[in-house]
Amino acid sequence: MHAPLFPHDSYHTQHSPLGAFASFSIGLVDSPGGFGQSLRGAAKQNVYIGFRAAAHSEWQLLPFLTPPKSKESAFTGDTGVVQPPRGFNSLPPSDYERTLGWASDTWRADTSRFGFSLLSPFTEIPDPAKLNKASARFHLAPQLSGWIEYDNRTGTAPVQLIFGVGDSDNTLRPLSDTNPHLIGFASGTAYGYATKPTRGIELRQGFDVLNPKFRDYRGLSVIAGETALIFTVPAGQRRRFPLALGFYAGGTATTGLTTTYFYTQYFRDLEEVLVHGLAQHGRYTKLAAQRDRELAKSQLDADQKFLLAQATHSYLGSTQLLLHKGQPLWSVNEGEYRMINTFDLTVDHLFFELTWHPWAVRNALDLFVRRYSYTDQLGLSFTHDMGVNNFFSPAGHSSYECDNIKGCFSHMTMEQLLNWVLCACTYAEHTGDRAWLRAQKKTLLACADSLHHRDDPDPKKRDGILKHDSSRVGDGAEITTYDSLDVSLGQARNNLYLSVKTLAAWVLLEKAFDQIGLKKSAIDAASTADILAHTLTTKFETDTGFFPAVFEAGNHSRILPAVEGFVYPLFLGYEDEVNPTGRFAPLFTQLRQHIAQALQPGVCLDATSGGWKMSSTSKNTWFSKIALAQHVIRQIFPKAMTAAARQGDRVHADWQRQPGCGVDAMCDQIWSDTGITCGSRYYPRGVTAFLWLRE
Amino acid sequence: MHAPLFPHDSYHTQHSPLGAFASFSIGLVDSPGGFGQSLRGAAKQNVYIGFRAAAHSEWQLLPFLTPPKSKESAFTGDTGVVQPPRGFNSLPPSDYERTLGWASDTWRADTSRFGFSLLSPFTEIPDPAKLNKASARFHLAPQLSGWIEYDNRTGTAPVQLIFGVGDSDNTLRPLSDTNPHLIGFASGTAYGYATKPTRGIELRQGFDVLNPKFRDYRGLSVIAGETALIFTVPAGQRRRFPLALGFYAGGTATTGLTTTYFYTQYFRDLEEVLVHGLAQHGRYTKLAAQRDRELAKSQLDADQKFLLAQATHSYLGSTQLLLHKGQPLWSVNEGEYRMINTFDLTVDHLFFELTWHPWAVRNALDLFVRRYSYTDQLGLSFTHDMGVNNFFSPAGHSSYECDNIKGCFSHMTMEQLLNWVLCACTYAEHTGDRAWLRAQKKTLLACADSLHHRDDPDPKKRDGILKHDSSRVGDGAEITTYDSLDVSLGQARNNLYLSVKTLAAWVLLEKAFDQIGLKKSAIDAASTADILAHTLTTKFETDTGFFPAVFEAGNHSRILPAVEGFVYPLFLGYEDEVNPTGRFAPLFTQLRQHIAQALQPGVCLDATSGGWKMSSTSKNTWFSKIALAQHVIRQIFPKAMTAAARQGDRVHADWQRQPGCGVDAMCDQIWSDTGITCGSRYYPRGVTAFLWLRE
Repeated sequence: MHAPLFPHDSYHTQHSPLGAFASFSIGLVDSPGGFGQSLRGAAKQNVYIGFRAAAHSEWQLLPFLTPPKSKESAFTGDTGVVQPPRGFNSLPPSDYERTLGWASDTWRADTSRFGFSLLSPFTEIPDPAKLNKASARFHLAPQLSGWIEYDNRTGTAPVQLIFGVGDSDNTLRPLSDTNPHLIGFASGTAYGYATKPTRGIELRQGFDVLNPKFRDYRGLSVIAGETALIFTVPAGQRRRFPLALGFYAGGTATTGLTTTYFYTQYFRDLEEVLVHGLAQHGRYTKLAAQRDRELAKSQLDADQKFLLAQATHSYLGSTQLLLHKGQPLWSVNEGEYRMINTFDLTVDHLFFELTWHPWAVRNALDLFVRRYSYTDQLGLSFTHDMGVNNFFSPAGHSSYECDNIKGCFSHMTMEQLLNWVLCACTYAEHTGDRAWLRAQKKTLLACADSLHHRDDPDPKKRDGILKHDSSRVGDGAEITTYDSLDVSLGQARNNLYLSVKTLAAWVLLEKAFDQIGLKKSAIDAASTADILAHTLTTKFETDTGFFPAVFEAGNHSRILPAVEGFVYPLFLGYEDEVNPTGRFAPLFTQLRQHIAQALQPGVCLDATSGGWKMSSTSKNTWFSKIALAQHVIRQIFPKAMTAAARQGDRVHADWQRQPGCGVDAMCDQIWSDTGITCGSRYYPRGVTAFLWLRE
Repeated sequence: MHAPLFPHDSYHTQHSPLGAFASFSIGLVDSPGGFGQSLRGAAKQNVYIGFRAAAHSEWQLLPFLTPPKSKESAFTGDTGVVQPPRGFNSLPPSDYERTLGWASDTWRADTSRFGFSLLSPFTEIPDPAKLNKASARFHLAPQLSGWIEYDNRTGTAPVQLIFGVGDSDNTLRPLSDTNPHLIGFASGTAYGYATKPTRGIELRQGFDVLNPKFRDYRGLSVIAGETALIFTVPAGQRRRFPLALGFYAGGTATTGLTTTYFYTQYFRDLEEVLVHGLAQHGRYTKLAAQRDRELAKSQLDADQKFLLAQATHSYLGSTQLLLHKGQPLWSVNEGEYRMINTFDLTVDHLFFELTWHPWAVRNALDLFVRRYSYTDQLGLSFTHDMGVNNFFSPAGHSSYECDNIKGCFSHMTMEQLLNWVLCACTYAEHTGDRAWLRAQKKTLLACADSLHHRDDPDPKKRDGILKHDSSRVGDGAEITTYDSLDVSLGQARNNLYLSVKTLAAWVLLEKAFDQIGLKKSAIDAASTADILAHTLTTKFETDTGFFPAVFEAGNHSRILPAVEGFVYPLFLGYEDEVNPTGRFAPLFTQLRQHIAQALQPGVCLDATSGGWKMSSTSKNTWFSKIALAQHVIRQIFPKAMTAAARQGDRVHADWQRQPGCGVDAMCDQIWSDTGITCGSRYYPRGVTAFLWLRE
């Protein structure tokens, strides 16, 4: 079985407010982190968090700094004084305990007397277009709450606590200079941290913030790069100090479509954000505790809880709520790639978003119709994404898709067509937003038409399976979201994964058409689903008991996403369609055998690690899709969950808890043998694990 | 004599519009550079500049890129494809020629058929508060002009040219998506480059921009980090293509005082800046050529010309014109330290600024009076600076000055008091702005009073020399601008440099008081000057023929800034005060001997390099102050300019031309033996060399 590469956890976590596309990332052992706006990975600031038992003893700091070379020498011309801060002990992981909750991340040390926590509370948020100002400020404030504490009730001397950030490339400024209600530091107008002005707090800024040599009239050296707050806890007392960590991106946020951050309507600047954060600290703390409790009380095991918590944190860090022409514009940025609303992520974020902010799904779908749809020789479809790195690409075009290519970077016409249908129907059905569904009538019909044509332009030749590529690919070929896997999942035509997803689309269309009174279309969708289900049964290899991943060229790869498509009817509670003895019984019988055989070591369980693999022929596996497949399999094919398959959770959690992935917070693409990430770092998609809470 | 450490020049130059605090830095061999906003050194983008003789031959590129690791693998999950761009030859310095003009920087290769140039034109600019819109747009556009060309008149095959920028951390976007008049790329809203849309220009964006593998509908892969324009020059033709390189910093520019960039009144966004730059390309080119001609035709030798050109470029890169409450706010940022309007730099930029934008001097002086003045136990003075890193410090306080210190980071009360007097009087006298001078009456009188008290509160004990430190220093001591040198120049009390500067201040006050009708004060100033000049003569060591640097504690350092103070009466044409046989003849006799003896190897000429040293007892020497001393000495003590002393220009130029300084463009603090910078990098102050044009 899998043995952890490292004896202790070491991973970054993104601590992020909703919609600010900003994170305060820390956690990786012996690594800096800190405030990052729209970055593709963790920032590189030194973060000072710790305590010391008495005024002149050594600081005990969490291992979140790489000792900065003092920049003092740049001023003094004296090479002799270049030195890191002195007088601290970087705590080894064995000397502290870290607990990642659903909405909190807490470090404890010194037999739990010392504590530090960062909170990322999230909750149900109504449509921002309809929020009143007070609610908007509460839900959309671009800030995190945190606290630092020490229980010195049995102590006989004062204890000092430190929280600080250092960046010698971009010095911070003392906030009290511009706002008397804040004690803390800011980097220009962009980010900062503060606590409430109370007694026993000292501001520090210097080249060596632990041992400041130079002090101005307010005790600081503001030309120096390292800053901190020092809190004193008197002997015999227990004190917890609130922290607010804020971001603010004023002015134009994106190009292509010119937008600003939605929150700029409610907060004039960073100072207002921090003042608000401290004023509402109690409410935010309570909300985080509520989420933490919910996850803690769930039926998930410790590894699953960790995976969902870590995934949720990275999801929040990728979210971006913009203001465009007076209206909210929702975006989830694609982790390290920073593509805007990548549609094959939207369809996976769906389940999480429909619970917490369902309007976000509708918002993205509307923009896909309005600006990011196109018609090729076969009909309507949608682009892979809406742009990249805060740049909205021209109408009808993604940032990703290139022409005349057979692999990565080709078009995903069929994939995104399915994604619009699945998101739209799932959104409308789950929320009951019938009015919106009716307004999409034309688009839904065009989608059905397009699906048919991509099967075959000639109705007589149709069997439900995609067999025709978009003309956009030129002399290339369409691909699926699994672009970086081998042909087993990468090729769109005659693809098992995509065919089952197509089946789901027709099932959902059937219900949707029915609901908006399009009887004929509903009947057509139903019959297409049935034809497709039947066609699929003819692809089963009775000799091996497997489906091939691709129905051509003698492909014999075995893939877990064979059942991915069933997540939509399952989520919507369509019983007959997910009942192994129901409407698609013959197909389910085959799929049950396929999945049971696939979940064996050496097939879709990695022979080395025991982790789940998307495909028997690729070592590149994706956590978000594992989580989704696990949900479907546990719900529909529970007997396939052998002991070996169940061990996967521990393996997958260890991958994320250790530096091979942990260097980039939640990672999606992972080498299944080593557990080291190979793409999709700092990534939002893992939030598919939210489905587990429904089991 | 000094032998260059490297056979070829290798140095960054800042290419910068006036007032944008932004630079496009390139030039250091085998190093990236590119667009930087408010940075403390060169950016780290790959810059692609070069040519290839035919469509499939190898690119010949200037050595301004460090081959980027392709980020393609982050998408494909394929570790095998990580590779730098292929198919180019990084030209060694021996294969190209670089010519730095006063307002241009030009590279030629391929027997001069290939050419690339960046222009930083500057000219006399009227008060921005009074500029009309068209003039404001022309003078204050945050953009650089450039061009790339090839003379293919004798060629038989087309030649391709490339200009591009790559940043895999921050992908660029094609400008033609948002503006049909531009063909180029931008990084968000912040910076970009473009040419005019004409035939024969191809846009490129890819992981390997020289060999793009993936092309979308417009031939690009916009998720990739490297971008370029490819120009084609047909056989038999010569073509020069215009370039505009623009910056745009919208929104809040500074905190403490909340400002925006002044140019945002005239340009709505980056696109407007670039369109303007291309439309006015001819005028900018002409203006740059005019400045180039002026320097070329001057009496300076090649080394001096280079030094002034390089210094002017770094000066422009540090300038920042802001808008505060509807009025212009001028700032020069202090190079790598980024302190705002450091006063002891203002006094050195004075001579350059009074020629090109004299209102800038007045603007800074007004803000010093209004916000950055204070009164200690001895009277009025001014802060060292106005803040740091785009943060204006609280009223009455600098970002630099700390308390209870004897060396670096202490207060410069006397230094800055003198700087206000010298700047104010020089500004008023040079420009004839008598109205402004009259409005400063109260401040000028308070300055004189403060100067007297810093000599001694008891009038009977006054001899003209500073003997009392500000109460602000606590138990420390006042320092001078030469903070990082040894005590010879660092200590303010009883300091030779500061005393001569005080003499200059009284001389200028005498004239200023006279001009605004304050006869009594004029007489007092005159008599104080005479007393001080006499006092100074008593400090001369008749046995050694030197002045000591500090009139206490047996100091015997020898310093060149002994004559620095005379630059002001010299600049203003006060003949009697700078006539060796005039008003201060006894003092001049001594100073002539002091300087002649100081300019000897082993004293103030470095024994190893031959470069000029500020002090005989410190290896840390400052180019800006060398340039100033050279001017005074050549004008007033010409006989001291021995052959050894004259050799200095070559040494100082080599320091800046080679990587020891060149890594950070113009550097000020330099180890006099090695020529390697030890502080004050990327620095504006070297523009004191502008004085040389007056000789």
